[in-house]
Order: sequence, then C-alpha cells, then structure tokens
Amino acid sequence: MAGETRIETDSMGAIAVQNDRYWGAQTQRSLIYFAIGHDTMPRELIRAFGILKRAAVTVNQALGKLPDEQAQLVIRASDEVIAGKLDDHFPLSVWQTGSGTQTNMNANEVISNRAIEMANGILGSKTPIHPNDHVNMSQSSNDTFPTAMHIASAEVIHQRLIPMMTKLRDALSIKSKEFEDIIKIGRTHLMDAVPLTLGQEFSGYVTQLDQGLQRLQATLPGLYELAIGGTAVGTGLNTHPEFADRAAAEIANLTGLPFVSAPNKFAALAAHDAIVATSGALKTLACALMKIANDLRWMGSGPRCGLGELTLPANEPGSSIMPGKVNPTQCEAMTMVCVQVMGNDAAIGFAGSQGNFELNVFKPVLIHNLLHSMRLLSDACCSFTDHMVVGIEPNRDRIDYFLNDSLMLVTALNPKIGYDRAAQVAKKAYQDNTTLRESCVALGYLTSEEFDAIVRPERMISP
Amino acid sequence: MAGETRIETDSMGAIAVQNDRYWGAQTQRSLIYFAIGHDTMPRELIRAFGILKRAAVTVNQALGKLPDEQAQLVIRASDEVIAGKLDDHFPLSVWQTGSGTQTNMNANEVISNRAIEMANGILGSKTPIHPNDHVNMSQSSNDTFPTAMHIASAEVIHQRLIPMMTKLRDALSIKSKEFEDIIKIGRTHLMDAVPLTLGQEFSGYVTQLDQGLQRLQATLPGLYELAIGGTAVGTGLNTHPEFADRAAAEIANLTGLPFVSAPNKFAALAAHDAIVATSGALKTLACALMKIANDLRWMGSGPRCGLGELTLPANEPGSSIMPGKVNPTQCEAMTMVCVQVMGNDAAIGFAGSQGNFELNVFKPVLIHNLLHSMRLLSDACCSFTDHMVVGIEPNRDRIDYFLNDSLMLVTALNPKIGYDRAAQVAKKAYQDNTTLRESCVALGYLTSEEFDAIVRPERMISP
Amino acid sequence: MAGETRIETDSMGAIAVQNDRYWGAQTQRSLIYFAIGHDTMPRELIRAFGILKRAAVTVNQALGKLPDEQAQLVIRASDEVIAGKLDDHFPLSVWQTGSGTQTNMNANEVISNRAIEMANGILGSKTPIHPNDHVNMSQSSNDTFPTAMHIASAEVIHQRLIPMMTKLRDALSIKSKEFEDIIKIGRTHLMDAVPLTLGQEFSGYVTQLDQGLQRLQATLPGLYELAIGGTAVGTGLNTHPEFADRAAAEIANLTGLPFVSAPNKFAALAAHDAIVATSGALKTLACALMKIANDLRWMGSGPRCGLGELTLPANEPGSSIMPGKVNPTQCEAMTMVCVQVMGNDAAIGFAGSQGNFELNVFKPVLIHNLLHSMRLLSDACCSFTDHMVVGIEPNRDRIDYFLNDSLMLVTALNPKIGYDRAAQVAKKAYQDNTTLRESCVALGYLTSEEFDAIVRPERMISP
Amino acid sequence: MAGETRIETDSMGAIAVQNDRYWGAQTQRSLIYFAIGHDTMPRELIRAFGILKRAAVTVNQALGKLPDEQAQLVIRASDEVIAGKLDDHFPLSVWQTGSGTQTNMNANEVISNRAIEMANGILGSKTPIHPNDHVNMSQSSNDTFPTAMHIASAEVIHQRLIPMMTKLRDALSIKSKEFEDIIKIGRTHLMDAVPLTLGQEFSGYVTQLDQGLQRLQATLPGLYELAIGGTAVGTGLNTHPEFADRAAAEIANLTGLPFVSAPNKFAALAAHDAIVATSGALKTLACALMKIANDLRWMGSGPRCGLGELTLPANEPGSSIMPGKVNPTQCEAMTMVCVQVMGNDAAIGFAGSQGNFELNVFKPVLIHNLLHSMRLLSDACCSFTDHMVVGIEPNRDRIDYFLNDSLMLVTALNPKIGYDRAAQVAKKAYQDNTTLRESCVALGYLTSEEFDAIVRPERMISP
Repeated sequence: MAGETRIETDSMGAIAVQNDRYWGAQTQRSLIYFAIGHDTMPRELIRAFGILKRAAVTVNQALGKLPDEQAQLVIRASDEVIAGKLDDHFPLSVWQTGSGTQTNMNANEVISNRAIEMANGILGSKTPIHPNDHVNMSQSSNDTFPTAMHIASAEVIHQRLIPMMTKLRDALSIKSKEFEDIIKIGRTHLMDAVPLTLGQEFSGYVTQLDQGLQRLQATLPGLYELAIGGTAVGTGLNTHPEFADRAAAEIANLTGLPFVSAPNKFAALAAHDAIVATSGALKTLACALMKIANDLRWMGSGPRCGLGELTLPANEPGSSIMPGKVNPTQCEAMTMVCVQVMGNDAAIGFAGSQGNFELNVFKPVLIHNLLHSMRLLSDACCSFTDHMVVGIEPNRDRIDYFLNDSLMLVTALNPKIGYDRAAQVAKKAYQDNTTLRESCVALGYLTSEEFDAIVRPERMISP
Repeated sequence: MAGETRIETDSMGAIAVQNDRYWGAQTQRSLIYFAIGHDTMPRELIRAFGILKRAAVTVNQALGKLPDEQAQLVIRASDEVIAGKLDDHFPLSVWQTGSGTQTNMNANEVISNRAIEMANGILGSKTPIHPNDHVNMSQSSNDTFPTAMHIASAEVIHQRLIPMMTKLRDALSIKSKEFEDIIKIGRTHLMDAVPLTLGQEFSGYVTQLDQGLQRLQATLPGLYELAIGGTAVGTGLNTHPEFADRAAAEIANLTGLPFVSAPNKFAALAAHDAIVATSGALKTLACALMKIANDLRWMGSGPRCGLGELTLPANEPGSSIMPGKVNPTQCEAMTMVCVQVMGNDAAIGFAGSQGNFELNVFKPVLIHNLLHSMRLLSDACCSFTDHMVVGIEPNRDRIDYFLNDSLMLVTALNPKIGYDRAAQVAKKAYQDNTTLRESCVALGYLTSEEFDAIVRPERMISP
Repeated sequence: MAGETRIETDSMGAIAVQNDRYWGAQTQRSLIYFAIGHDTMPRELIRAFGILKRAAVTVNQALGKLPDEQAQLVIRASDEVIAGKLDDHFPLSVWQTGSGTQTNMNANEVISNRAIEMANGILGSKTPIHPNDHVNMSQSSNDTFPTAMHIASAEVIHQRLIPMMTKLRDALSIKSKEFEDIIKIGRTHLMDAVPLTLGQEFSGYVTQLDQGLQRLQATLPGLYELAIGGTAVGTGLNTHPEFADRAAAEIANLTGLPFVSAPNKFAALAAHDAIVATSGALKTLACALMKIANDLRWMGSGPRCGLGELTLPANEPGSSIMPGKVNPTQCEAMTMVCVQVMGNDAAIGFAGSQGNFELNVFKPVLIHNLLHSMRLLSDACCSFTDHMVVGIEPNRDRIDYFLNDSLMLVTALNPKIGYDRAAQVAKKAYQDNTTLRESCVALGYLTSEEFDAIVRPERMISP
Repeated sequence: MAGETRIETDSMGAIAVQNDRYWGAQTQRSLIYFAIGHDTMPRELIRAFGILKRAAVTVNQALGKLPDEQAQLVIRASDEVIAGKLDDHFPLSVWQTGSGTQTNMNANEVISNRAIEMANGILGSKTPIHPNDHVNMSQSSNDTFPTAMHIASAEVIHQRLIPMMTKLRDALSIKSKEFEDIIKIGRTHLMDAVPLTLGQEFSGYVTQLDQGLQRLQATLPGLYELAIGGTAVGTGLNTHPEFADRAAAEIANLTGLPFVSAPNKFAALAAHDAIVATSGALKTLACALMKIANDLRWMGSGPRCGLGELTLPANEPGSSIMPGKVNPTQCEAMTMVCVQVMGNDAAIGFAGSQGNFELNVFKPVLIHNLLHSMRLLSDACCSFTDHMVVGIEPNRDRIDYFLNDSLMLVTALNPKIGYDRAAQVAKKAYQDNTTLRESCVALGYLTSEEFDAIVRPERMISP
C-alpha cells in the first residue's frame, strides 16, 4: 500500500523504500543524495536499458550462466521496461553519478523486484533474482550505460528524427516544384540582387535537408558500436568470451538495427566521440533549419511594411495588444529550438572532452542533451511542416512588383556593355529614381529595344 | 466535469476547451500548434506573471481605469497564481512564439476565467473579466513577458541561488579553518611544487565563491529594471503616464525587491542584455565550481592508487560490478551541472543576439535556460555541501608522506645558493632517487645542518 | 651579426641562439618545441610584462634585495620592453606551456641580455643581470603571467575599448536626437506593429551601449587584483612580506590604474574567474552590437526591394558581378566580429574551468582570446562609427509610406472599441485591401471623424 | 618605387595605391574601411583563389570566351598566386564584407595588374586584363569565395591534418604494442578499478584517432562540392552552361582532389553546412585529443607526489622559480589547442546559421576559424608526437606497486563468492589497511590458496 515501506539493502546497509515502488536501496539512496533539478533520465534511455537487460540475460542463459527459469523471469520483467509499463519506477535525476551507475542499478533493482513479484517472492529479498548477480550478470554500469546511450540514440534517429526531417524535406520539395515558375528578385547582403525563381530558393532548403539527412545517416555506424561486454574498464572481466558479440547481436535482433560489438571497448567506455559527432550533425541541421525558418519569416514579413512575398498560415492571434496581428510563430519556435540545439552541442562537446583514464563520467549530461536535441528537432520539424510549410502561399503581386523595380537586373548587361558602364547605368537610375532602361538609353549605351532584348528576368535564372 | 468541454473564443474564432481547465482559446491553440518537446514554462515564471498581473490591476484600479469590484476579482485570482494553486492550468511549451505571447495570454485567460468563476459567471464569457481588456489592461506580451523574466530571475537569485552559494561558501570556509595547520605539497601543472596548507588551498575556493557572489549581486540592478509600461514596442501606447513607475513600485512592494521601471523601454523589449550578463555570472560561477569539484575528487582519488589526500563521504555503493568501490559522485553531479550551465550560456548568448527592431523573439528560450542554470546551480551547491563538503576528512598520513618526499622543497634554497645550483640539487636527487639533503650535501653546496635550517616546510607557506 | 650564434644555457644545458636576438635558452627551446600555429603572444601582454618587471625590480631595490646599479639596468631594459622597442625579441607562440612560463622567461631573458648589453657585458653570461635571480626575483611564472594578463586587460579596456565604445555610443546618441521627430512604423516578430520614432529606436541602442559600458566597468575591480607576490603556489614563498602590496602599488603607479594585491593569491593563480567574467561582459556587448548592426542593415535593405528606411553610406562597390550594388559591409564586419567574440567566450569559459590544484594551466589561451575579443570589438566599434553610423540618413518617403499604410495603427482603437472589435477592423482592412478607416466605418464602429481623432501616429509614441 | 603611388579606379572613383603593390582600388578601399584586428585572410585561401582563377580562365578560354593571349597572361599570374609569390599583395582583413567580395577583388586586381605587367602594360589601366571582365569572368564573389573555402579546406585536410593525425595515431599504436604486457591498475571515477594493460589503455587512444580520421574523411565529399558556376545568386547568370562542371573538373585537375560542381548552387552560396559539419569533426577530434593529453599528463604526474606511472620527455625547464621542475608542457599546449578548437566551433556554428536568402555573409569568419582549427590541430599533433609520445616511458616500479596494492582486484571474486561478500572483503581490507587476501581469509570466504588461484591480474585483462 502506498505510504507503507519495506526494507531494501545494498553494500551500504538497509534503507526504507515505498512498497508500491519496485526500486531498491541504491535507487533510493540516489533520490536522497541527488535532489538536483527536475531533469529525469530520458524515457528512451530507460527503454534502451530494458532492451539491453533482456539481451544480456538471453545471452547469459544461452551460455549456460543462468538457469532458464530465472532467465525467463528477467526477460518478462525487462519486456515491461521496454514497453514503458514501469516508467514510474525510474525516478532518478540526470544529475547523479557521472557513470550513470545509479540508473543501471535502478534498472537492475526494478527488474529484480518485478521478477521476484512474478515469482511470488518477497520484494527486496533478491531471491530468486538478484539485481547484481543476475540482472547485471556479465555487465558493469560502465558498459551498460554507454550501450543504452547508443541504443536510445539510434532508435530515436530512426523512429523520430529521420521521419520528421524527411517529412519537412518532402513538404519543402513540393513547394519548390509548386513555385518553380515564380520569378522573384534575389537578395544578397539583404540587398536587391539578380533574379531567381521561388522554386529555386526552396530547392536550396531541400538540398540542405537532403545533406542533413546524409550527415545524420553517417553518424549511425558510430552509434551502432556497443560497449556491452567491456564491463568495468573495457577488458571484459567476468564475461564469457562470446558475450560481447552475442549481446550486440541480440540487441540488433530486438531493435532491428545493425548494432555490433565495439571493436575497442576501452575507447567505448572512456570516450563518447560518437555522441559528440552525432551532436555535430544535429548542430549542422540546426544551422540549416535556422536559415530556412529565418528566410520564411523574413519573406513573410509585413503584411504591409515588410517584404511580404509570402503569406504564412495564420494559426493564432499574434498579439495581446495589437488586434489582428499574425506572427510567424512556427518560425520562432523553430529558431529557438535551433538555438537550444547549439547550446546543447556546446555542453556535449565539453562533456565529451572530460574523460579520464578508463571512464568518461559525464555520461548522463551527454545523453540528456543529445536526446533533448533530437526530440526538439523532431517535434519542431513536424510542427513546422504541418502548421507552416504546407500552408505557405506566394504573394504574386508583391513578388512581381519587386522583380520589376529592382536595379540589379542591370547585371544582364555586363556581357554586352561591360561591368563599369553597367554600374553607371544602375547608379544613374538609382540617383534619378528612374528605370534601368531610361538610364541606359539616356547614357547612350543601348537603345530601348536593345535593352529589352537583353534584360529579361526569365532568361536570368539559369546559365 | 473532466472530459466535457466548453467553447472558448478569440479573434480566430471558437475552440473547445476541457471544462476543468481555466485556460481559454489562445492557450488551447498553442497546445495544438506547439506540440514540441517536454519543456514547459518554468513555474517561477508563472508565479512572476501572477505578481505582475496583480500589480498591473492594482495600479489600473488606483488610476481609475478599472472599477474596484473587477479589480478585486483579478487580484484574488492573481494571488492564486502567485501561490502556485493554478499551476496545472499553465501547460504551455517553452517552444512557442518567441515573444511568449501565448503564456501571457495563458495568464490572462486563467485569471479571467478563475475571476469569472469567483463572480459566479460563465467560463469563457469574458464577463465580468475580459482577458485582454481587463487582465492585460495597460500591458502587452512584449512588456509583460520580459518583466516576468526579470521578476523570476531576481526572485530565484535571492531565494535559492544566493542562499545555496552562501551555504557552500560557509562550509568551505569552515573546512579552510579546520585545515589551516595541515601542511601539504602544492601541485602546479599536476607536478609536485612547493608546499602550502590545506587550509590555504580551501581558502582559494572560498574566495572564488565570495567573488562569485559579488558578481551575481552585480547583475541584480540590471534585472531590477522592468519593461512593464512599454507595451507593444516600448512607447507605452495605451498606458497612463504614471503606469510604468507605479507598476514597478507595486511589484517591488509585492516581492520585497527594489524593482524599478526600466529607463529605456525600447532596449528592454528588443534586447535582453541583462539576461545574457546574468548568465555570464552563472557561467563564471560554474567555472569556479568545476575547479573546486575537480580538485576535491582528484585529492580524494584512490583510495590506494591515486592521490588519496582527502577522504570523501561514502554515500552509496560506487559500482555495480566492483564491490566496495566508492566514487566521488557529488563531484560528478556538480561537474555535469557546470557543463550544462556552460551549454545553457551558449544558448543564451546566441538567443540574446538575435533581436530585430522592436522585439527580441527568443524570450522563452532565454528564460528557460537561465532559470535552468539557476536551479541546477542552487540544488547542486546544496547537495554538494550536505553530502560532500561537510564530510571531507584529510588523510594526514598520505599528506605528510608526499610533503616530505617532494623534491620541490628545493625552492627554499634559491635565495641561498641560486636557481641554477638548486636545480642541480633537485635533478641529482631525482636521478639518484635520494633525498634533497643528501644531494645538496653531496654536491657540496651546504652542510646537512645548513640544509635543515633552510628547508622547513612550515616556513615555506608564507612570504 | 645575423646568422651568427652565441651559446645560451639553462638547467637543461647549452643551446645556440642567433646573435641579434636578446632571448636566451628557454625561449629558444620553446621555439623548437612549440612550432604550433601562427598566434604569438599579444603585444599588450608583452608590454604588461615590461611593466611588472620594472615594478618588481623597483620594489626589490627599495627592499634592499637588489643593488641600485643592477636595478637601474633592469629598469632601463624593462622600459624598452614597455615602449615596444624589443617586440621583435618576443617570438613565442600562444600554444606553449599553459602557465606561460616560457613567455615569463622570454621577458627575463630579454631584459637580462639587454641589461647586460647596456652594462657592456657578454650576452648569455647572466652577468651582471641573471634572468632568474635578478629579473625574476621575488616572482614565479605562476604569479607574473596572471599579473600581466590583468595589466594588459585593464589597459586595453581603458585605452581602447571604453573610448571606442563611447565613440559609437555618442554617434548613436547624436543620431537618436537627430531622428527624434521621425515617426515610423514599429516592427515586432518582423511584422508591422505600432509606431515609434526613429529616434526612440536609436535610443534603445544608446541604452544598450550605456549599460554595456557599465558592465565592462564592473569587471575592472576584478582585473585590478594582481597575483604578483604569490610566487609559485600562492604562498608568497621567497618574497619579502611587503613585496606583494608594494609591487601592486608600483604597477598602479606606472599605469595610472588602481591595481591592488589580490587578497587571496591561491585563487589568483589557480583560477581566472575575473577573466571569464570580463569575457562575459564582452559577449553581452557583442549581443548588443549584433542586434544594432542587424537592425541597421535590415532598415537599410533594398534599395528598392527591401525595407529601405535608412540609406547607409556607400563606401565601396558591393559586388564583383552586380554593377552598382552597395552592401552594408560595415554591419557585416561587425556581426562577424560579434560571432567571433562569442566563440572566444566559449573558449575562455572552457579554459577557465580547467584549473587543477594550485594552477590553471590554460593561461595563454585565456588571454589570447580575451585580448582578441577586445581588439576586435574596439576596432569594429571605431570602424562602424566612422564608416557607417555617422553617415546614416533616413529615407523619409519610405518611412512615411510604411507608417501610413500599416494596419497596426488599429491598436489605438482598443481603449475606445475594445480589443475584439479592433481586431475585426484590422482583419477586414487586410482582407479587403483597404484602409483601417474605411474598414472601421464600414463595420459601423466609428465615424470617419471619430476614427481620425483617435488614430494619430504622433499621439501613439508615448503613454 | 615604394612610397610613390599610382591611381587605381573602380565604380566609386579613383584612389591612390602604392606603386610596389599590385592591388587595385577595391583592395585599397578595403584597407581603409576595414582596419579591424590583425587577422588577415589565411594564405591557404589565397592559394585557393589562385587555383580557381586559373581554372576559370582556362575554361573561359576553352569555351571561346577569352582569347588565348589574354588567357595565358591570367594563367601565368594565377600560377604566381598559387605558388605564394604574391602573398604580400593580399593584405586584407578577415573582418571585411561578409561575402569576401573584397578578397575576391583583391585576387582579381592582383592577377590583373601582374598580368598587365607581364604584358608590359600600365598598372591600373585594366588593359589588356580587366579585373572584373577577364579575371572574374563567369564568376561572382558569391560563388568564388565559397569555392575557395572548400578548396583550401580540402587541401589542408589532405596535406596537413590527415598526415599529422596519422603520425600521432601511428606513434600511439607503436606505444600500445610496446606496452602490451604491462599490467596496471585501471581507474574509473578517478578511483582504483580493475586492471588492464598499459597497451590496452593506449589502444583506446589509437581507436579514437582511427575513428577521428574516418569522421574527417566523411566530411570531404561535402567539401568537394564547389559553388563555382553559381555566380551571384546560384542561378549561374552570365555563365556558359558548361562552365560550372568544367571549372570544377579543372580545379580537380589542378589539385588532384575529386572536386565536383555542387548539385544545388542555391544552398552552396546561402549556407555553409559542409563547413559547419567539418568543424564538428574537428571538435570531435579535439575531444579525443583532450582526453588523451589529459590522461598522459595525469599518468605522468609527480614525480613523487602524483601518479607517476609514466615518465614524460623533459624538454625544457619547467619553472622560473622551482629548480629542476619538469612539466607536461606538450600536453598543455595540446589541451589549449583543443579548447580553442571548441571555441572556433562555436563561432562556426553560429556563423553558419546566419545566412539570409541567397547568401550567407559570414564567410570570412567561417573560413578563418575552420583553417585556424585545422592548423592548430595539425601542428599540435605533430609537436605532441615528436616531443611527447615517442619519448614516453613506463615507470614499471610504480605501476606494479599500484597494481598489487589495489583493492579492486576483489572484483575477480564476484563469480565465486557473489557481489555482496566481495564488497565486504574490500571494505574490511580498506578499514583494516590490510590486503584483500588477509581480509578474505579472515572473513572465512576462501582459503589463502583459493584466493591466490582466483585473484590473478594477468587473468583479469580479458573476458
């Protein structure tokens, strides 16, 4: 009953735990000693622990190290962790020991007690399933936590990030084709430049996302390498020689992703370069998304005193004081997410550099930030697509007005009259506030007909 | 009843809201359009909104802009926001519009409906309390959100961060005095250097915290300047000329902190330099704490194969595979927090630079990161003190052993025999694996008695 | 003669040095062992070393530790270092030992040999002036290098940064007054908002710089605290009890800045929180400057297809292909500088956190980045003022056009007809592409005369 | 003659240039308008401009757009740029226009005037070679500068970074094999852990570098994509349809690297994701190198009061006050470099996110930081290898002493007596300050013979 407690023990002694919680002594101690912030270990990581515990026990059983009956109990309890049914029993803070030992023990304890319960045993008795000797068999926090980091990261990339990036990429691609005949003025340095099509402009965004997807894919092989089997310092002490490879294979089997045993376990425990590199790919994506979101909100600026080339979806009232105002809020959410991803990347890089000897003890802060970035980017891509990109409409009047008013069409004259005279034409038109044609004719460089034959925006959008 | 809904409206039209929630149409829309991540607006910010809404209505009433009866309703509802009773009615994501308009409207709507309920009106009717016309009277999101950012930041600094930093500082100071007679070897470049006392070493930490407190105090005047009264773009449109000053005074009254009206509202809406500067002070503190936590875990390293000069509290088992292992986990939590604070600072700096014209629309990401840093640092200082610093014990045998074995005591000979000969003494002792005395005598520079008279660690710890 | 060499010695042995260089063995070794990059120690730091060496010898002389004749030689040589006459003799890389020992020795060696030369001695003989025993008397690299860091930083702030920031601030202030009667449309979320004056907009920039100056001033007390007198680990070993205070006083005397002896030398050697905090102030300034530069280039965008409210000085041709193009290049240089300052701040924060025990060995990277940021900001403020701000002209036609076209003037109707109806007016005008007046009258909320009496931009720019 | 000047002109008018410089009006203006900092455009970038100008003229000639005689002049002048002979004629600051236009024009002007000189023409006459019409033919700054960025980056990676990383990797690999039989205590959380070999520890470093090399290789395809042919906004205006592909092919031919024409020129001008991603790979490498350098200096700490497991090369005296001190200075230079690379990466990420529409105008700051990081990492890897890694010697006495003294050998007992009892054994030994064997026997868990049969370090270093 809630409120009542039982006694749990570890090598430090006894401690009371609420009866309706499966966790044991070490989790309970961590709750007391690490009352820091509100950030709990990400659910994706807890699920990954379920997967690896299930894989480990399966291999231990197959290697004859654990009787079938015990193994089945652990498997059933692990399945509940994987399914998220026991999420309420993983209360620990990110800001705990830097190896994540307490979360590994949290998994060991919860699986142990849930398995004990299934066997009608006494919670906390460690019989018939001991958290260390059975659930953690052939493992150490030092290899399980980084293994869970990689499993969680790879799963989220496959299940959330790539689909959502692809969704956004496809929506932009549709718009790019939709806009392929809309010729507009280009802008460089924020200043009027030569024309391109709106479709071409969007094609740049599509390319950025295509390349972002490729870069993300390129980080996966690093994440597929698992530390499992390295145990405490990378040597694999207390494991069967086949354990590492078979555990990785079993994890691959459970997840459908091509995980393998890391070729060098010393690096796999002591460094997290694969995590840092993945964050680098996320940061690069954030740069791309920030550029895209900024472009869209600038092109949608106005409605009357901005550029106003695009009409963006009006999802909600924009102002609590200015009636009728509509703001590019999806762009703002996206750019804020991008900023956060860059901050997270700074934390990840720093943390990734701080390993010592056989262990990097900044594991929780690394995975917290990486999964945070992934979640924000996934969700933001989805929201940005649904509530923004699909609803973008070109404002053709405005686009045409700017196109025809621009002085930079003068560039088309370069091959005919040379750069220096073309510059004169543009300057004169600007100073006199006239058209390029008038200026060019007045300067005597071309006739009006010659001018019109050369300065044709529709011929300026390709080589 | 939960599950049943009512109709709420805004300038976009009607939308259904759950009956048991006080929020209105704009909050509901934001929930739909910004399903991004799990980060909700910090509670401290919601409280700050309660404070400012209460202050605004009080001033509006005093200026004769709102009848007493309506004002009292808003005040009572605001008080509930301040007290945290309505926290469940503030569900919005950090990743929303960059002005925080939706959270301002969330506050307006919740206070409106709660006030309506108190007046036995119909939720959603906006009568007798309209979210915009009454709760938001004389305000805009553009001045309320930054006002709430400053209120929340200053309150957290006063109520949490300064007390917890002071607690840690005091605990270190006690240790510094406790250790003032323990002479130990100094280390520079990680290499053996000349001696100092353990108390002196800790005094450096105390000084870092003292200066950190001063730096934090120095950021407060910037935070005390409030945007309230600037409304939409900083001009104060639609406010009474006295509103800004009186609202700031009322907020000062409610919080006991010396808030004032920002002298320039244009900067107060369009930039957040005070937030960036405060984060800079937090980052500097993080640098100090990282150094301290690193020193302590290195001095506590071992127990047998490290430096082992300190014995740190053993709070929990350290390893799931290595029995009896105890780790410097509080130091690890602290260093991870420091890394996060630096990442947050990167996000804050970036966001702070991205304002345009009359508004910076990175407000939510700014305050999210700033309050996150503050919370982590506060909690980590508290935990680090209670579970770590107060329990530190010197390992005197080890300290003495190192002190007497070090070759760098040779430095005391410089004034007597000169740097070059002293270097010879040290090198010879190192190569021959003997003592400095033996080496010095063998080289014929001093007699044994002369040497002993000069090389006295207890005389080497001050000028 | 150049090309010919002499033999210099240190505790490692003998090494050849070019005859026309004053440096000695340790500098020469550093050149060999640290051929990393092209970044040499900043000149401001070398000058600071000259100042501190002069101050130290003056105090040593006064304390009777060094005969007058030797002292005078050191003083004369130090004066040449201060004046920059010996800059070619300070060739060392930033990427050397983390204590900067080699640069301290570079100073000791150059002053020693130059003094020897003045005394008609033999270069490399260390007679009559020994680099360690005389020039470095009462000092260690560990206290001199951080002392030089603080001297250089404070001098550059006073001599370059504050004057250049003030210059920019004053130029913006003049423009703010010049533009105080120009009413223009405000923009929030990049979207049309309520009006303000161009002068008000610029007043925000002035305020940001005023506050930036205050924040920079607030970092100075931390920089005024000098490590000198702490020697190797902070204890002041081998110094006279009065040395620290008198050396700081002498440095104050030489520089005209109120330097003092750091109250705690352990912190002064082992941490560089004052440097980190100063960089935080520079980053905050960079945020402000980035916002200002971005605003100006956006308001100057066009000339025909952008906002075009400002005409920025045309200093150079903007394009190698588009004739007549003029770009906001000063803004671009400024924003790039701001980005660099943020990157430098990230490096500084990281480096500042990495001290161990009695020493932080990231001193060169700290001061390299800090002085780099200061130089860039100083120069960029100067260039931005001279070549940009002073030449800004408002484009009144464009400003008026936008002002009168904007729908957000509707906000003035809120107190009269309420937020919801005002929103209707704006929406209708937008959809029908008419004026607010027409829309308001059509909806029957106000007569044309009533509308005109309320919606007056010149009354919307203050409470 | 130096001091004398000639008149150069551009579309802004005439300006005096020193006679002994080849640059023209636009370079001269840039010198005046951008007197910001001391950072000049990297030499590698100037060389890249030479390559691309040569390639462009070759293609223009082949396409019949430029007569052979003129083309040959441009080719010969470009070759001198490539060879570095004209480096003194490229004086411009990094802090100029954000498109790098002025450096593109610097290249155009220098090649033009040098070609004119070769043709015995008059400097500044633009005859027979015009900087815009001939040297810049078919090009814009907007496509040439990013092209040069990619050429320079790819060349430096191939010519400097990969060779130097490989050199370090190989040196570490040799040490790893050399140390493969040295069993030592492992350390996790800085605390004593189970053993491994020193060779295994170094194998982790080798793996980190191997993977770092792979990550760097993975960035090359992105860098091989060239913007050339996109001209002003990506459309390829004023180019021959074959120009882009043929220019890229010619650049590939000149460099021996597989450059190709970027498939989407809009992204290639407006974003620099490939640069950001490359910096991410450099940052990941910096994390690895920081970890390695830190491990080595910690293992080399002492000589008597630290870990002392390694003896590091003594290259120079370590202290100006402590005679005989030797410090891990190569490690310090390396860790400072790593810190700088992380700062540079922050600047690059920020800059990479700030593009607008058809152009990212943060190009110079991007390439400045990227090439800076590459140079520092290349040089530091080289220095670290030559002056540090090759000279590392194990201190076998110390290594053995720690190994045999450690309590964590107890882990080998887990499979025999279970985790809980093993923990008791370790705790008792620690408390009683005895050996594990004595403790285990005293607790009655094993006989002395059984203990010795199980606890054998040489069997603990593999599964």
